[in-house]
Amino acid sequence: MKAIAITHILQMEPSLTQITLRGWVRSFRSNRFIALNDGSTINNIQCVVDFENFDEAVLKEVTTGAAIEVKGTLVASQGQGQDVEIQVSDIEVLGKADPEEVKLTILSPKRHSLEKLREQAHLRVRTNTFGAIMRVRSKLSFAIHEYFQKNDFYYMHTPIITGSDAEGAGEMFRVTNLDPVKPPLTDDGSVNYAEDFFEKETNLTVSGQLEAETYAMGLGKVYTFGPTFRAENSNTSRHLAEFWMIEPEVAFNDLADNMDLAEDFIKYVVNYALENCADDLEFLENRLLQEEKSKPQAERSEMALRDKLKFVLENNFKRVSYTEAIDILKSSKPNKKKKFKYLIEEWGADLQSEHERFLVEKHFKCPVILFDYPAKIKAFYMRLNDDGKTVRAMDVLFPGIGEIVGGSQREERYDVLKEKMAAMDISEEELHWYLDLRKFGTCVHSGFGLGFERLVLFVTGMGNIRDVIPYPRTPGNASF
Amino acid sequence: MKAIAITHILQMEPSLTQITLRGWVRSFRSNRFIALNDGSTINNIQCVVDFENFDEAVLKEVTTGAAIEVKGTLVASQGQGQDVEIQVSDIEVLGKADPEEVKLTILSPKRHSLEKLREQAHLRVRTNTFGAIMRVRSKLSFAIHEYFQKNDFYYMHTPIITGSDAEGAGEMFRVTNLDPVKPPLTDDGSVNYAEDFFEKETNLTVSGQLEAETYAMGLGKVYTFGPTFRAENSNTSRHLAEFWMIEPEVAFNDLADNMDLAEDFIKYVVNYALENCADDLEFLENRLLQEEKSKPQAERSEMALRDKLKFVLENNFKRVSYTEAIDILKSSKPNKKKKFKYLIEEWGADLQSEHERFLVEKHFKCPVILFDYPAKIKAFYMRLNDDGKTVRAMDVLFPGIGEIVGGSQREERYDVLKEKMAAMDISEEELHWYLDLRKFGTCVHSGFGLGFERLVLFVTGMGNIRDVIPYPRTPGNASF
Repeated sequence: MKAIAITHILQMEPSLTQITLRGWVRSFRSNRFIALNDGSTINNIQCVVDFENFDEAVLKEVTTGAAIEVKGTLVASQGQGQDVEIQVSDIEVLGKADPEEVKLTILSPKRHSLEKLREQAHLRVRTNTFGAIMRVRSKLSFAIHEYFQKNDFYYMHTPIITGSDAEGAGEMFRVTNLDPVKPPLTDDGSVNYAEDFFEKETNLTVSGQLEAETYAMGLGKVYTFGPTFRAENSNTSRHLAEFWMIEPEVAFNDLADNMDLAEDFIKYVVNYALENCADDLEFLENRLLQEEKSKPQAERSEMALRDKLKFVLENNFKRVSYTEAIDILKSSKPNKKKKFKYLIEEWGADLQSEHERFLVEKHFKCPVILFDYPAKIKAFYMRLNDDGKTVRAMDVLFPGIGEIVGGSQREERYDVLKEKMAAMDISEEELHWYLDLRKFGTCVHSGFGLGFERLVLFVTGMGNIRDVIPYPRTPGNASF
Repeated sequence: MKAIAITHILQMEPSLTQITLRGWVRSFRSNRFIALNDGSTINNIQCVVDFENFDEAVLKEVTTGAAIEVKGTLVASQGQGQDVEIQVSDIEVLGKADPEEVKLTILSPKRHSLEKLREQAHLRVRTNTFGAIMRVRSKLSFAIHEYFQKNDFYYMHTPIITGSDAEGAGEMFRVTNLDPVKPPLTDDGSVNYAEDFFEKETNLTVSGQLEAETYAMGLGKVYTFGPTFRAENSNTSRHLAEFWMIEPEVAFNDLADNMDLAEDFIKYVVNYALENCADDLEFLENRLLQEEKSKPQAERSEMALRDKLKFVLENNFKRVSYTEAIDILKSSKPNKKKKFKYLIEEWGADLQSEHERFLVEKHFKCPVILFDYPAKIKAFYMRLNDDGKTVRAMDVLFPGIGEIVGGSQREERYDVLKEKMAAMDISEEELHWYLDLRKFGTCVHSGFGLGFERLVLFVTGMGNIRDVIPYPRTPGNASF
């Protein structure tokens, strides 16, 4: 008989029809109440066993972590905590879980730290916390596709292995097939990449933006959602060597359109999570409350998780130019009292995380979009403003997360782009195709990148980015 | 004023309200009819210019490939070929396209070969053919997510950089940050990967299956959709070094369930394309008809593109055991007449593309699912049948494409798996986590992999896999 998913059983009306369900035992109390979970929802279903009618040897194998098949009828629950439960007529143990071994793993009911669970990344998804996170992650992924598809964007896969080293977003990983001990060399002693698989040096992409621009010039509105890489030795709670990024790119959009898109998009996906992940978010909200109980009052969140998500939906993102932001920061208390690690002294300073957090969390108390940054601290492809010193860049800053989106209107003028590339020493030969876009029907266009894991961090209320991706890659860590 | 996408304008009723549209000029006939395209659809909108009312200098810049903004009203068309057209009141040229330069690129109206266009991969999406392919590709991607999400699967991102070399699906690319000329060596002269970024040797993934299994054991039903890599020197029309793969994995599914899932899934996404890509598929069908006109009758498709897609929807996939298939092949005409390159002489032979195509295209004349293959020609993780010599593997074979899906029920028995790993020399230490799944609540489970580009090939009727991905990676080629 086909098994029914527990998430659906919990929505069904009691009935005399026998049903089948399969899942893993979360607990077995009093030789009578099996809490069964199949991963379809955070909620267990209670399966009530009349132990006198069952073989004792079978019941002995119904232990935490075991996989079982249950047959029975759905009845109104007599107990508290659930509306319905299964009156069990039949149990089959499909896969045992040795209780002694279970004690040593995460399947044990005692609490394990998040750090410890990272070492058991293949089992941690069986816990309530990671089950909830990964279900939310999945729903957010779908919300992203649904948003763009509903709004006439085309999804494109930009290359992961890239022959271009001009993306400029950070350190890259080399991809190679050459002899690792004795690579072939050229006469001048450098590696002879002509003998490599792609007959040139190749790296893992740091961004699909430049390729996405090529497609926006044909399809109009496109987005990417794929893995990107940074070979940076930063062991922080916000950085991964491998992470997923979403990059929409839209022909004919200027910077104001780009801000509208970013705000509308983020609100859509956050709302989608609120509507489609209610149980998981409730669990994660309570988890966060518990976790914060051990912190001093001042470090606790001002809002509960779901209130924070609703706050994002209900408020406009405050749009502030870099120049205004510098004025606010210059005359701010932490700047005057020298509490900032990097004091803001003049226009042109690069903003640090402490400044961004001050603006978002203390000054405006809402998501902020900073725009029109100094050209010299931003990438070569950003549209130069008429003032000749700022570019049409934008960063969306979120409370607790910092930068969640970075984007810009792109420089669409051939001559200006060529000049900037020369000034920044970017090879024209390498990017001839990117320049071509400005030769044939160039137009105003804009886009942004959103780091997916930062979004998942925000929505789940987790504190470390390693806990919101199945198998995190960080310096020294590529297990599994 | 906000521009409206041409795909929507073509659905609107004529009206006196002025609207704005932006796009690229496909042609400008008789100084009067601009065919404008914005990528939102394969269809151009005709913009009618009363040239006496326009500055001649502006009209001179309205050339193929130029980006323009048009204002006007939507009126019923007087001409043939379209229901509505734009009566233009205003034109602004946003980005010119020098006609002399255009002649040298794909923007020129004369036909270019598909091969030639690959060298201009940054511009080819502006052609009708590649615009259509990439829109279909996007819709198919969404259909995949929609199918799984509707059916309670959770999407997971399996790692791209993997420390495991036991995936066993093919040659891998190395990912490294070590000095490319003089890598650090250990005392025994091998590369000292302890000094590399991840402190071990790492490669690009060839499959997310093993990690997907870990999540199926927690979330029940999961799927991946991500890039995978093969460092194989095969320059064929069906292989890429970088391609996208979909891998569902379901706890408690046996091989029959797995076949049901594969068939239901493929039919869903093919139907989605038929329903949501009508115009693009019509174009691609006609393109294929044109292309085949130059071929001898015998090599032409028996069915038009959309008929072929409907045929897949309307027919059950024929399920045939490997053993039956061998019997059919042994006594087939091409085997007896020695027309096969590899003659089928006995049970145990690995099937080649010629055999698969014979079964699908000549014998059964429909999609075929082959199952229960000899254990010795399949991977270690496949469930051994009680006969001790076959495994619960399955391949879905499609006309013109060959293998589109490969999958299996997984070996869920700890002892059997351990034994097979030892026999096949697969490191237990490396895969301790994979063995763990069989220790804690193991259960029957199954999954498969579908090469996304092969699906796109099938649905678009294209002949070369390099033409259905934006930037193909093949031996010697990682341009852009």
